[in-house]
Amino acid sequence: MNALNNIRIVLIKPLYGGNLGSVCRAMMNMGISDLAIAQPREEFDWFEAGKMALHSKTILETRREYASASEAVADCGMVVATSAREGFYRDHSQGPRELAPELLQTACDQPVAIMFGPEDKGMDNDDLSLATHIMRIPSTPEYASLNLSQAVMICCYELYMASDQFEPSQERYPAATSDLRERMFAMWRQALLDVDFMPPEKADHMMMGLRRIFSRALLTTADIQILMGMARQTQWAANQVNRQRGE
Amino acid sequence: MNALNNIRIVLIKPLYGGNLGSVCRAMMNMGISDLAIAQPREEFDWFEAGKMALHSKTILETRREYASASEAVADCGMVVATSAREGFYRDHSQGPRELAPELLQTACDQPVAIMFGPEDKGMDNDDLSLATHIMRIPSTPEYASLNLSQAVMICCYELYMASDQFEPSQERYPAATSDLRERMFAMWRQALLDVDFMPPEKADHMMMGLRRIFSRALLTTADIQILMGMARQTQWAANQVNRQRGE
Repeated sequence: MNALNNIRIVLIKPLYGGNLGSVCRAMMNMGISDLAIAQPREEFDWFEAGKMALHSKTILETRREYASASEAVADCGMVVATSAREGFYRDHSQGPRELAPELLQTACDQPVAIMFGPEDKGMDNDDLSLATHIMRIPSTPEYASLNLSQAVMICCYELYMASDQFEPSQERYPAATSDLRERMFAMWRQALLDVDFMPPEKADHMMMGLRRIFSRALLTTADIQILMGMARQTQWAANQVNRQRGE
Repeated sequence: MNALNNIRIVLIKPLYGGNLGSVCRAMMNMGISDLAIAQPREEFDWFEAGKMALHSKTILETRREYASASEAVADCGMVVATSAREGFYRDHSQGPRELAPELLQTACDQPVAIMFGPEDKGMDNDDLSLATHIMRIPSTPEYASLNLSQAVMICCYELYMASDQFEPSQERYPAATSDLRERMFAMWRQALLDVDFMPPEKADHMMMGLRRIFSRALLTTADIQILMGMARQTQWAANQVNRQRGE
């Protein structure tokens, strides 16, 4: 099963609709969908929440609400409290990158919760005491307090990264073989001689410069096609000129 | 020097004030302060920007504005374009975690830019063509489009993590020595015998269970003080009871 399905984001008394919507979007971007709200406020800007949720409204609509944080995490094995502050109860804090593997491992078998306190005050000690783990997101001491939805995003991002669900971009063309690269360089050598870019005795030296430029990264077969096309056309132009000069 | 000071966040035609403010806060959280806006819009919600920037208003106020993206990055060595889409020009994309070390390395000597396109359309091909590197933030294919400020946050977070500026929480008490741990277990063994929690012949077995519980993580000297205090008081209570029973 996909462990991300067992990750529950628990917001305690969130204040701002915009943040709630942004939380939904961040969760959906990272493949997480279980949202719980503990002690929801009576007055709340649901319109703004829907606006910021954009294409992640399902998460907003399927959220569950609980009278307390303890009820929201009652069935969870690992319970993580997030806190920007340091202090006696927070000494053992770990970063999201450190915690992600253990969270995912536990989430293979049972729900795990990550709790976030209200925007203005953060988590209180009663809710903090529910936690099996304390998480602190790395930030500068000059301004350690993150926006709620940004904090959720970093947690979800680290979990998604650790879950190995992401498929990085793939080159659609294979890397050029050495033989193909050498034919391309040979064509350029001839083209650059033809346009009098370099005298024959300097050719080896100049070509080393060109090789260095093109050796910073792998060239694909498609890259080589472009470079060969340019060389071919350059040779053609040089030959036209030379013919007109009657050489 | 601190390489983070040479990281420039370039927003191209940003639409929403709230996003701009959240970008400032994310930058300040992660120790990055150089903000450029290319092609700023005439109508813009600066009030909302200031509200979301919160304690990072300095970054908002010291931003520089440019008529085009090419001017905003003119003095930069590495120029990174961020894109959620895949496509021909985006085949070579790398993730922020992969790119961070090279970005910081380059930023030791010269400014480097990370460009973000407008919220509604993303980066156009003209601006993309300025880039030396393409960055794609990992996300689910189901919903790959991140909120602008969330995307900036992940980039800044990865740069901050790679910069090794963060000092993780430290235990304020040292780990208990083996000798101190053994004295604590001896006290509990006696206390549990005194309250008749276990018969003497089961004591070794029960104590292995207790040792297992307390061996999941390191105990500090402060933890041991608490556990010894509990054992001492338990023994005292047991002795009071036994004395009253006239034993």
